Amino acid sequence: MDQRPIQPRTLKGFRDFLPGPMLRREHLIETAKRVFRSYGYSPIETPALEYSEILLGKGSDETDKQLYRFDDAGGRDVAMRFDLTVPLARFMAQHTGTLGVPFKRYQVGPVWRGENTQRGRYREFLQSDFDTIGTESILADIETGLVIHDLFAALGFTGFTIRVNNRKVLTGFLEHLDVADQAIAVLRALDKLPKIGRDQVSGELESEGIGRPEANEILQLASLRGDNDEILATLGPLVGSSERGAEGVSELREVVDGMMAAGVAGERVAIDVSIARGLDYYTGTVFETFLDDLPDIGSCCSGGRYDDLASLYTKQRLPGVGASLGVDRLLAAMDELGVGGKRDTAAAVLIVYFDASRRDDYLALAKELRSESLDVEVYPEPRKLGAQLKYADRRGHRLALIAGDREWAAGTVQIKDLASGESVEVPASKAGATCLELLGR
Amino acid sequence: MDQRPIQPRTLKGFRDFLPGPMLRREHLIETAKRVFRSYGYSPIETPALEYSEILLGKGSDETDKQLYRFDDAGGRDVAMRFDLTVPLARFMAQHTGTLGVPFKRYQVGPVWRGENTQRGRYREFLQSDFDTIGTESILADIETGLVIHDLFAALGFTGFTIRVNNRKVLTGFLEHLDVADQAIAVLRALDKLPKIGRDQVSGELESEGIGRPEANEILQLASLRGDNDEILATLGPLVGSSERGAEGVSELREVVDGMMAAGVAGERVAIDVSIARGLDYYTGTVFETFLDDLPDIGSCCSGGRYDDLASLYTKQRLPGVGASLGVDRLLAAMDELGVGGKRDTAAAVLIVYFDASRRDDYLALAKELRSESLDVEVYPEPRKLGAQLKYADRRGHRLALIAGDREWAAGTVQIKDLASGESVEVPASKAGATCLELLGR
Repeated sequence: MDQRPIQPRTLKGFRDFLPGPMLRREHLIETAKRVFRSYGYSPIETPALEYSEILLGKGSDETDKQLYRFDDAGGRDVAMRFDLTVPLARFMAQHTGTLGVPFKRYQVGPVWRGENTQRGRYREFLQSDFDTIGTESILADIETGLVIHDLFAALGFTGFTIRVNNRKVLTGFLEHLDVADQAIAVLRALDKLPKIGRDQVSGELESEGIGRPEANEILQLASLRGDNDEILATLGPLVGSSERGAEGVSELREVVDGMMAAGVAGERVAIDVSIARGLDYYTGTVFETFLDDLPDIGSCCSGGRYDDLASLYTKQRLPGVGASLGVDRLLAAMDELGVGGKRDTAAAVLIVYFDASRRDDYLALAKELRSESLDVEVYPEPRKLGAQLKYADRRGHRLALIAGDREWAAGTVQIKDLASGESVEVPASKAGATCLELLGR
Repeated sequence: MDQRPIQPRTLKGFRDFLPGPMLRREHLIETAKRVFRSYGYSPIETPALEYSEILLGKGSDETDKQLYRFDDAGGRDVAMRFDLTVPLARFMAQHTGTLGVPFKRYQVGPVWRGENTQRGRYREFLQSDFDTIGTESILADIETGLVIHDLFAALGFTGFTIRVNNRKVLTGFLEHLDVADQAIAVLRALDKLPKIGRDQVSGELESEGIGRPEANEILQLASLRGDNDEILATLGPLVGSSERGAEGVSELREVVDGMMAAGVAGERVAIDVSIARGLDYYTGTVFETFLDDLPDIGSCCSGGRYDDLASLYTKQRLPGVGASLGVDRLLAAMDELGVGGKRDTAAAVLIVYFDASRRDDYLALAKELRSESLDVEVYPEPRKLGAQLKYADRRGHRLALIAGDREWAAGTVQIKDLASGESVEVPASKAGATCLELLGR
């Protein structure tokens, strides 16, 4: 009886990662973790599955609808996490007694949402968050900006801008105009400014009962442009009598000054009073990060300060500040800008298995090169040179080491640069040093 | 109305990882990935969720029962992966045309099983696998052993033994005895040898219709002890006329010799004819790895060679060889043996925020130290020295940098070793070098 194979396929919205994209993703994640750790953020992990009541507690109606939710074999109502923020809130409510505050954590892991894939969204994607919990100190806001800066620099991006705002500035400004009750409507309207333009936003504001003079002032604020000092100088008088507004302006100044003091170049940080980032969650500093060469892909790292992380799970107030990397977006940008390399193999060097009787010699040579910090693959079978070089080309190895009878007798190896096609023959004892040199290390 | 908080809790069998254990887990995983890559294994990723028919195809009845399986919002019958081997088989069936063979991959990620938690099992745990697919060359078997060796050495284990066997040896021996049809029953009985002893196993073999002389010979083989050369010398005559047996003995010799040729110390590799590792899957070389100081926790890294990875999903035959790390077991061992450190923070150095007006100076100092490859946390708020040192002690920072008015005026910092309690005062420009020296780097 001939049994038909099961069709190998993945679910809609779910992806396999092949070595090339996965090597770049691992490079991104390992770089991010190194930067997080260099600031004293420590890793935590939470389960993929949680009680549904935990996850339903915090999300919007939209995320509730997108939950992968089911009854487990024990009859528990469970769901797969849809972000890393809600699990963090649950985690902090549960463990703050043990951990104490301030507490700095990062977490990197997959999340699941039953998104409409027609909008180019995935149903499984990686999130990478870092947060400082349990302090209201502006130093933590400054450090959040510094981590973003160091991360983009470490990834090899040369042109990027961290846009900073403070929610208190707009809130204070609306208090000053005496329209604080319409704050949410104003934010919603302003979010559309880049799309629908000034006139239509003005109309929306007026339909919310905001007078034309106030609407004009709001639009004037949102359109404020200039260098950071100019904007700060203008904002002061604009927020006028509002204490909260003055606080926002002062915090904005501290974040920018603190980042400069820690060596960030002036052009990397731009105050942008038009960014708001979510209606309810953020309460102070907010960040967005744009690549100068790819402005249209949107913010690649966003975050800000919030007043109370875990109020659904604990009566302890836990303020904090943090940000989240847009991993898929950043990877697409790295591909498009040629940042981070293009290889499909982890190993720069391939040792050609040329002479069937020399297997153990190839293994010993590979061990020698690895001890000099080289990543080395030995082709597993003795095959024709052409087939092995074709394999190296397909995988993206950069150097091929070739040694046959003649070379073994002479105590040499040939090292072929697979990009240029050029070969050098060197004493076997110099193989590692020559590879490192050819690789520019 | 006072709303009661939702009780923060995790599901039975699921775990939060706090920073201490998570730092050690990340160290383990990053070390493993570095070793995998140094041999040319490349990362891949597959989804957490798959069509149930894919996962039900390969597992045993037991894993089928343990599946987290449900209908998604689109009515698809889906399940969470219970290992990384079945997804690899599906992946290779789907992508071998694109990737070509030989193909070397590693994958690290969580898997889910509705296990009985009374047996100390978790329902979510990490797997870490590496495999070479599409070649029957013994070089790939040797390299699998080398990766295991380098990995345990890189993690800092000084006493470990990689036990090697070859399934063809026993199969060939049973052919030679003319009881090949009872192979599965023999393996099942032999698996119990350490528990129930020789006599009872002999009884079981006889009840399967195996004669007493043959049962005795089987038990003699399984009890074979000695150094590798002695065992190999004895095995040859034992497998007698069986071609398959002779092949197994020869492969076993090649694996041991190849590992020695690549520099592995003789005492790290021990031929052990009693290990079998699963009844159906493995067909050639098999590996288990034991820690000399903790033999009772069992094998911490196991694997072997198989004939056909993906027969359920494709007609293409894909032989391969690989192994899987027991991540939880290894972490428990590292804890118990004091391998890999004990800190609860990522950063060795804490800069005390002592003088409220000096925030930007602390930030600049931190930046300077980071540029010298130090991981540095700045305490976020100006608080009393005692409170900050208590924090450093709780987190496990190793050095505290203290600078107040006097030190800033003198251009110095104090560096306090938190283990010894001793302090040195050095010029601020020497702070990084002094920290590196005190940390032994």
